[in-house]
Amino acid sequence: MARWEGNARGRLEEAALTLFEEQGYDRTTVAQIAQRANLTERSFYRWYPDKREVLFGGAQELEDRFLAGIDAVPPGTPALPTLLAAFATAPQVFRPREFLLRRAAVIGANPPLRERELIKLVSISETLSTALLNRGFNSETARLATDIGLAVLRLTTERWMAEEHTDFAGFADALSASAADLLAVAADATPARDEA
Amino acid sequence: MARWEGNARGRLEEAALTLFEEQGYDRTTVAQIAQRANLTERSFYRWYPDKREVLFGGAQELEDRFLAGIDAVPPGTPALPTLLAAFATAPQVFRPREFLLRRAAVIGANPPLRERELIKLVSISETLSTALLNRGFNSETARLATDIGLAVLRLTTERWMAEEHTDFAGFADALSASAADLLAVAADATPARDEA
Repeated sequence: MARWEGNARGRLEEAALTLFEEQGYDRTTVAQIAQRANLTERSFYRWYPDKREVLFGGAQELEDRFLAGIDAVPPGTPALPTLLAAFATAPQVFRPREFLLRRAAVIGANPPLRERELIKLVSISETLSTALLNRGFNSETARLATDIGLAVLRLTTERWMAEEHTDFAGFADALSASAADLLAVAADATPARDEA
Repeated sequence: MARWEGNARGRLEEAALTLFEEQGYDRTTVAQIAQRANLTERSFYRWYPDKREVLFGGAQELEDRFLAGIDAVPPGTPALPTLLAAFATAPQVFRPREFLLRRAAVIGANPPLRERELIKLVSISETLSTALLNRGFNSETARLATDIGLAVLRLTTERWMAEEHTDFAGFADALSASAADLLAVAADATPARDEA
């Protein structure tokens, strides 16, 4: 059993996801989630303000991981490589792949969860930009690098989720490949000069 | 008076924005907005499902403008330049700059409006990606170009909003400059090779 599944939060996440799948997000109550996780409602509210939040426990862990990853990057590293180095450590806090696939399906099918996911993404985006500002980058560079970095991260995780067998070790390579693909798309915007 | 102010929707937008500023978003009702715009509540609901939507009438116009702009781009143009060409026509449907600045302040101060804005942005993003797919780009290129394009558009509009005197004619140039800045940030992610 993975570490996150052994604790109360992991059990609540798993219980909520299963209930959302079985009977729908709208019809699931906090009481049902707690009961299925063999916990009290009170325990639920210790960790989450509402049922909308329960699938996003991993977002905070990811944000914390990214901040620690950025701190570990040598000073003088440009903005985007700083983010990509931090992103490469993301698999350390990923939920099991099976869980992530089920979670993505449930979120995609429920607008309230999609809204919450967008807000989490903005929170991560602002945290990353601030971390870059604190390393001395100006605000425009911080924002651009964050936007680009998150586009690369999204493509990488989509590819990783779509592969049947991908180990965590390959994640850094996948990030580099996605960054190269992004650069190729971005480079099209620069008009070719003097090509007679 | 600008064209958009003369019609019912423009009056409702202006009335809502003023009331949100004066007495707060939470305390403003649809009845008050309609009254201030010299319209009935029924008229309000003809255009908007709720008070949360009233400041986002421009989002749909922008989306329609972008689609028309994409259609006008010559076949064979790469994905990102296609989007940038469409974005360059955005000022045709922009609200007056004064209004946009006030609107941005009100949205920034009210979480329900920020959420709605995020959802509008996702809608525009999906529309753009689909338009690129329809032009024959593969889904990864369509998504990357959209992510990059929207990052460039955001930087451009932020710069444009921050300038005291910027005419619409300069918008296309500002887009190109922002795209070049993005490329510079993206290029940092490619390791320099053979630099002995």
